[in-house]
Amino acid sequence: MYLATIRLGDTTRAVKRIERDGQTQLIDLGYPDVRAVLEDPEGLTRAAAVVDGTVYAAGAADFAPPVVDPDKVVCVAHNYGEHFNLLSLSVPEHPRLSTKFSSALIGPNDPIVVPSDSHALDPAVELTIIIGKSVRHADDDEAAAAIAGFTVLNDVADRSLAFETDEWALGDAWDRSTPMGPYVVTPDELSGGIRPTLTLSTRVDDTEVQTGDTADLHFDPVHVVRRVSRFMQLSPGDVIATGSPVTPVHRHGADAHLKPGQVVVAAIDGIGECRNTVVAQ
Amino acid sequence: MYLATIRLGDTTRAVKRIERDGQTQLIDLGYPDVRAVLEDPEGLTRAAAVVDGTVYAAGAADFAPPVVDPDKVVCVAHNYGEHFNLLSLSVPEHPRLSTKFSSALIGPNDPIVVPSDSHALDPAVELTIIIGKSVRHADDDEAAAAIAGFTVLNDVADRSLAFETDEWALGDAWDRSTPMGPYVVTPDELSGGIRPTLTLSTRVDDTEVQTGDTADLHFDPVHVVRRVSRFMQLSPGDVIATGSPVTPVHRHGADAHLKPGQVVVAAIDGIGECRNTVVAQ
Repeated sequence: MYLATIRLGDTTRAVKRIERDGQTQLIDLGYPDVRAVLEDPEGLTRAAAVVDGTVYAAGAADFAPPVVDPDKVVCVAHNYGEHFNLLSLSVPEHPRLSTKFSSALIGPNDPIVVPSDSHALDPAVELTIIIGKSVRHADDDEAAAAIAGFTVLNDVADRSLAFETDEWALGDAWDRSTPMGPYVVTPDELSGGIRPTLTLSTRVDDTEVQTGDTADLHFDPVHVVRRVSRFMQLSPGDVIATGSPVTPVHRHGADAHLKPGQVVVAAIDGIGECRNTVVAQ
Repeated sequence: MYLATIRLGDTTRAVKRIERDGQTQLIDLGYPDVRAVLEDPEGLTRAAAVVDGTVYAAGAADFAPPVVDPDKVVCVAHNYGEHFNLLSLSVPEHPRLSTKFSSALIGPNDPIVVPSDSHALDPAVELTIIIGKSVRHADDDEAAAAIAGFTVLNDVADRSLAFETDEWALGDAWDRSTPMGPYVVTPDELSGGIRPTLTLSTRVDDTEVQTGDTADLHFDPVHVVRRVSRFMQLSPGDVIATGSPVTPVHRHGADAHLKPGQVVVAAIDGIGECRNTVVAQ
């Protein structure tokens, strides 16, 4: 099942993607957003059963982040083996975690605004977990059961903020910097299921600047959920980004930073893509 | 004005502290919590004018965190000069920031629960800003105007979590670890006003383990608000803890960690105190 949240004027609606009459359409699920679907214990079952209802054309939809206002956004740094090697980092015993506020999120096609005082933005595609059940101090089985599905997140980092001090975490957490969506895809749809084996990539103006395979995640999604749940109660709609393959700035130097006018596409095969235009403030 | 949020069954009420009939009482302000007062542009003016209404005895009140569910909790590390010296840290150009989710907060008299797998909790009293107006990219005047008042926060750190990896920030951010309150005190009540000059201290079973003066903050509250607003929109009810004087573990070694049965009091003269019993999970 491919779930999304679309904007309709001042409100939002949860939808699922269907193919009908040779077109990709979105059918209204009767909830305001995907978080509301997940907060209903019967929500996913009900969503799967929906066959009638208001239908929207996917091509014309204005996608919000699938979870509009999650309580928690947690991010893993350096989770691909190649990244550890390149940065000469030893592989840690546990995933390195940071957090964002929900105000960092934007829709999968919203503009990425370059702050007037910042000049070093890097994209970073990340396989991203959406939590479906409340869980704390999870074991592997509980962690796996808590994963409702996966989405795409572009963890755009502002290196000029990050390197002013050692606030590397806040350099990723500034307001309205992080495209997410459009779809939350349930594991049954994906190669590898709960531990997906999917190609992911970032392109800037059709030049590939980042690529990888989620099979190379050092800490897989189940491990990550188990670990995060040691620190905090996870709740339906919470977001955990699992880390990025080697980022463009490490591959290509300072020229790789995003510039106004560019279009950046962060994609995961089988899940979807965030496609965002970079604009000056 | 001394504002607080108290629990009444399943709901909460915003109150202000008054002295009447020789007793400290709390008068109902007609809002569910202090955040709701601050979100109303006329809220502080209305609160100041309240003279009649339901009254509760302060001594019997069950205090919630004054802002029950803030959108943002931001923390400054290492903001007192002595702390930089002790840790042999150079003083950074900007305050070092980390974040918490609101689920980290507990009331000023709620128990501090020691997680079963953690054994190194340290208290840390912090002068804490409560935001009263939305602000982004603030200058000094805007930052000063955005400060509604100050409260007390005990930024209890779990060193065993923090030092497992370099997740020092998450070692401060685990669920239900951070007492806050009881009162949000408007600057006009405080020595030093918007840049308070107040003694602060932490006592464990009546032994003082931490003391300082908010006049020694390296980055004062106005500077801190200005800096945080560079990263994110601040909104009414948001919480910014300004950092702690030298913490007990640095002064006294491992014996200083909190143990079940102890009572820890984090106090700021003129604002109030968090008084919490440490309990085993």
